[in-house]
Amino acid sequence: MNLSEMASRARESFYILSAQPLSARNGALLRMAEVLEAEKADIFAANEADLMKAETEGLASPLLHRLRFDEAKLRQVCDGLRALADLPDPIGETVFCHEITEGLRLYRVTCPIGVIGVIFESRPDALVQIASLTIKSGNAALLKGGREALGTNGVLIRCVRRALEEAGLPADAAQLMETREDVAAMLKEDRLIDLIIPRGSNAFVRYIIDNSRIPVLGHADGICHVYVDQSADLETAWKVALDSKTQNLSVCNAAETLLVHAAIAEAFLPHFADLLREKGVEIRGDERTRALIACEPATEADWSTEYLDAILSIRVVDSLEEAVDHINYYGSHHTDCILTQDQAAARYFMDRVDSAGVYLNVSTRFADGFVYGLGAEVGIATGKIHARGPMGLDGLTTYKYKLLGHGQTMAEMKSGERAYTHRVLPEKCPL
Amino acid sequence: MNLSEMASRARESFYILSAQPLSARNGALLRMAEVLEAEKADIFAANEADLMKAETEGLASPLLHRLRFDEAKLRQVCDGLRALADLPDPIGETVFCHEITEGLRLYRVTCPIGVIGVIFESRPDALVQIASLTIKSGNAALLKGGREALGTNGVLIRCVRRALEEAGLPADAAQLMETREDVAAMLKEDRLIDLIIPRGSNAFVRYIIDNSRIPVLGHADGICHVYVDQSADLETAWKVALDSKTQNLSVCNAAETLLVHAAIAEAFLPHFADLLREKGVEIRGDERTRALIACEPATEADWSTEYLDAILSIRVVDSLEEAVDHINYYGSHHTDCILTQDQAAARYFMDRVDSAGVYLNVSTRFADGFVYGLGAEVGIATGKIHARGPMGLDGLTTYKYKLLGHGQTMAEMKSGERAYTHRVLPEKCPL
Repeated sequence: MNLSEMASRARESFYILSAQPLSARNGALLRMAEVLEAEKADIFAANEADLMKAETEGLASPLLHRLRFDEAKLRQVCDGLRALADLPDPIGETVFCHEITEGLRLYRVTCPIGVIGVIFESRPDALVQIASLTIKSGNAALLKGGREALGTNGVLIRCVRRALEEAGLPADAAQLMETREDVAAMLKEDRLIDLIIPRGSNAFVRYIIDNSRIPVLGHADGICHVYVDQSADLETAWKVALDSKTQNLSVCNAAETLLVHAAIAEAFLPHFADLLREKGVEIRGDERTRALIACEPATEADWSTEYLDAILSIRVVDSLEEAVDHINYYGSHHTDCILTQDQAAARYFMDRVDSAGVYLNVSTRFADGFVYGLGAEVGIATGKIHARGPMGLDGLTTYKYKLLGHGQTMAEMKSGERAYTHRVLPEKCPL
Repeated sequence: MNLSEMASRARESFYILSAQPLSARNGALLRMAEVLEAEKADIFAANEADLMKAETEGLASPLLHRLRFDEAKLRQVCDGLRALADLPDPIGETVFCHEITEGLRLYRVTCPIGVIGVIFESRPDALVQIASLTIKSGNAALLKGGREALGTNGVLIRCVRRALEEAGLPADAAQLMETREDVAAMLKEDRLIDLIIPRGSNAFVRYIIDNSRIPVLGHADGICHVYVDQSADLETAWKVALDSKTQNLSVCNAAETLLVHAAIAEAFLPHFADLLREKGVEIRGDERTRALIACEPATEADWSTEYLDAILSIRVVDSLEEAVDHINYYGSHHTDCILTQDQAAARYFMDRVDSAGVYLNVSTRFADGFVYGLGAEVGIATGKIHARGPMGLDGLTTYKYKLLGHGQTMAEMKSGERAYTHRVLPEKCPL
């Protein structure tokens, strides 16, 4: 089937799905868990084949680990499906009600976005998670996983589609794209597709943006900072900075650059360097850092580098303002932390740092949708439009206005026959 | 000054402006009203020159009317500035507070988007309105008005910038771009500019999208529909449908196509045709319409045409479903109305029609930010992402997460030393 056909079917499915009650959508999620369990022999077999092929091709160990879909992964995924079914309905919610004039009420109501193209890494569980999130929120999805997981994903999508059908929903609410050519074709379908969520490198997100008119919710770099202010508590600072870098090295919310105020650098850095070395972290420091601790030299390029590895760049700054300027210039506007006991410094930092997450005295590792209490994580949006930072289900929704009247006309408003009352009412939309 | 320099200055201005209290931003708006009044001789003189030049070049009468900036326009604009100053602060508002674990609170807080490029029509008052909206919401703006208003806009921007300075804010929070080359250069500054709002034709919005990586909030076509359902009340239907087409012909929320259920067409159309003819509206109808009233033939192209004129296309449909399918296929997803007394039909229509505004028994002419009670109108967004339909100040804002802790680490969460509490709290962010 060509992509135009797939996109048309997705659109038809969206129209149907968007009007289904929560019980039907939740029913599909619960059925997905059952079908996955029932078909696990096929899933594991396909996965073994994918893994063997990837190993032969020399795929790196962490990526092989990510590719594996075993009994433990299955359990995790099914638990996730059931937890998602427990979340409240993200659509059909009245955001506000305004009375415009007597007998005329405006409701802003949440609704699905429509048809969403999601391109993600070679992590088979991601396919199930993403499909479950789009279904829960009434959207139709065109999914593309990494090619290493093609076999596993082929079985998984079959399970998802079977579950949809058995739950009385259109199977085409979840479709799998298989090749890069499919993705390229998808980018042209701006009449049928409402949003693309590419999870990948900056270069990949740029390629999508450059080749499509469809809005893109980018999910890319994480160049996160920890800034140790002159009035930081040292014990807290050592602990939080270390966790931000080392608790998990290869995630987007790991800190990549540490900034230290000159007035506290001498007290902070030597012990911190010991802690980093214990964890096997390579330190790259500017000249003033190198005057205090033994480390490799940092270059301009280091400030803009997301290592995703046991490397940390360190720079000594003369002021809070300089730290803020550095972060706004070099950072990826993801998550940045200040360690301080000074409220005014904290306020300045959190207002002026132009990032999705600004943290005070807590590890950058907390930037995650589940941690935030959003109940789900669709991805981490790196832009500012529509969603910013860790995205929950609301990132997959938009709203529409429902205006319920009794024959009012603009002529009547203009002539004064009717007057605007403009009252905010605590009403839910009845339709 | 080249565009890169302007964009850098805009960005610096945003960083400063975003941290200014509401009183300073409101102060700038009030000062703008005073400065415009003080400099009105220069404004009117420049406007006279623009008008004479435009008239010589044969600019159409409605556009000349739009170009005029006289005493009455000045009063309107100043009233608008004062009314805007009275609106609550759109930034710094706590959307929600989640306790993550003891002593760790997450706040989602509204904040400005950043640097916004706005391209608008040759309406000098629009410059003042747009600048006031971006300033109120803490954004820096790069503004480009139509070339016919260049002289007037040159004086107006001087007034705006003077008011900013006198209110203690950076003048570069509002800058004027003068040429199409400026706009083309602006499109490349994706590191410095966060959003573009192009107010213009579909083709213009597409040009912007095709030539920039910067997110675009499109404000284009209005192909709005009125659907007369079989169980519509005739008196209401005649009145509302007429108003939707004729109350103002040249606006995006005027209805362009009428759909009528076959079961009510014979009762509805003849009298409606009379009403339209009284208003000088040319009717273009499909075959079944032409069987009931005298009119021009409608072609496929008519269904996709925004006339902005005294022309209405009419089509007879066999069902509510057919009406919905027509609107979703041919419409611009702006504002669409159903006339009916049947609640189930109303519900179906409003759920299934994929538009920013779905109306029941009320004129499409109500699609307007001020009418909606939003207090302002930035534009009418025709997409689904970030803002949809008439956009108030909140369309110029985004949010950031402020996470306030006391030294918590992810290691402590993973080890079980700390547990997630995940409580929603009614707290405002203290920083």
